[in-house]
Amino acid sequence: MVTACILIIGNEILSGRTTDANLSFLSRELNELGVQVTEARVIPDVAATIVNTLNEVRVNFDYVITTGGIGPTHDDITAECIAEAFGVDLVVNLEIEAMMHSRPAPDDVMRSRLRMARIPEGATLVRNEIGPPGFQLENVFVLAGVPGAMQAMVKDFPGKIVGGKPVRSMTLGAFLAESPIAEGLAEIQAANPEVELGSYPIFRPDQSGINLVMSSTDPDAMQAVAEEVRQLIAKHGQQAVENGIE
Amino acid sequence: MVTACILIIGNEILSGRTTDANLSFLSRELNELGVQVTEARVIPDVAATIVNTLNEVRVNFDYVITTGGIGPTHDDITAECIAEAFGVDLVVNLEIEAMMHSRPAPDDVMRSRLRMARIPEGATLVRNEIGPPGFQLENVFVLAGVPGAMQAMVKDFPGKIVGGKPVRSMTLGAFLAESPIAEGLAEIQAANPEVELGSYPIFRPDQSGINLVMSSTDPDAMQAVAEEVRQLIAKHGQQAVENGIE
Repeated sequence: MVTACILIIGNEILSGRTTDANLSFLSRELNELGVQVTEARVIPDVAATIVNTLNEVRVNFDYVITTGGIGPTHDDITAECIAEAFGVDLVVNLEIEAMMHSRPAPDDVMRSRLRMARIPEGATLVRNEIGPPGFQLENVFVLAGVPGAMQAMVKDFPGKIVGGKPVRSMTLGAFLAESPIAEGLAEIQAANPEVELGSYPIFRPDQSGINLVMSSTDPDAMQAVAEEVRQLIAKHGQQAVENGIE
Repeated sequence: MVTACILIIGNEILSGRTTDANLSFLSRELNELGVQVTEARVIPDVAATIVNTLNEVRVNFDYVITTGGIGPTHDDITAECIAEAFGVDLVVNLEIEAMMHSRPAPDDVMRSRLRMARIPEGATLVRNEIGPPGFQLENVFVLAGVPGAMQAMVKDFPGKIVGGKPVRSMTLGAFLAESPIAEGLAEIQAANPEVELGSYPIFRPDQSGINLVMSSTDPDAMQAVAEEVRQLIAKHGQQAVENGIE
């Protein structure tokens, strides 16, 4: 399994002011490249925390993707923290610098804008069709936090990020509580370790139910488990709802 | 500062199938109790990962709140992992057991339901008006992952969780790019370390802008910084938008 850790950098997520929308997007896109996100961390805009966390996770996961903190203001400190974590200098990238100079601006505005041209020595660019790029240093990819910019940078992942087989998953719903079929599910899971079988209850004023999610890199094994789950649901007098209960 | 780490336990969040909705709720509720969430981690339903992560964070933060994995199915392993992390037994709680027995059910269904009655030895209950409770062991609070159940358990926090002053924050918007006012913002931040000043760009097809967020446990200091920010925005020919740009 090829693994990734997502580092979401930003006080606005930790305070609850902003709800993160990047993790689910990144997880699904990385999965298409055969990379499984096996951990995510949300950390504050604090240099020591960013440096220490990055140095911990970059040796424990195949890839690390960071989001946030690469704009032109004082609270954008990700690039300098990545440089510090790797023990390299922060240098001006000539390509980004030229991009910044292509739109004239007063000196002070240009100085701030050029903060975004600084990347760690040895880093390469992660392209962004709609604005300043992110960058890659070894197995660490540094992306914007604004969802539109982050998503534009992810388009540059193919070729840079190389994984194994993607996980495929399917969902079956049932208008049952979890407990009646819990033992049956446990038996199916025990007999099929190559398929992950997750059970997610849904509580509704009208009618509660469950969604059962089968995930595997082996589509045939996934389908075989789904058939066993359909039969388990039928044994309890219900018909499985294909694609799950909304 | 009294700190908390949120542990979001669940493959469904890491795979991107489900977008977490609990972190922002918990951050805001804990802040009202004077506790700042300074880190959050999303980890998979893997016993060793849960045990090791819990043992790392419970000594580094004043409080740890976990969500997910306390239902009746095979993939609900949080309670046994917490017991293992603390080196205590998983025992049947008589109060939860009685609650489970109050609704008759066939033997196999009751066996599964009673999985939810097992809590680590020494843990106390975190009440839930609408279903089975969570539990507390030392500085660790173990909550449901389903948002409705999690939110019901948070109502039992006052008295169990004791913090300092809550952080108050306010937002001013401006139809400006970040770079023109970046140096001015950096000066204001440098002169006012007791107020956190965050800058968040907004990109829109019609009109882009920024939201500037002032946060502090000192409301007067926050208001003073806001006034400086209003003047900075005015100096650039714009009027600050109170409460920010949507």
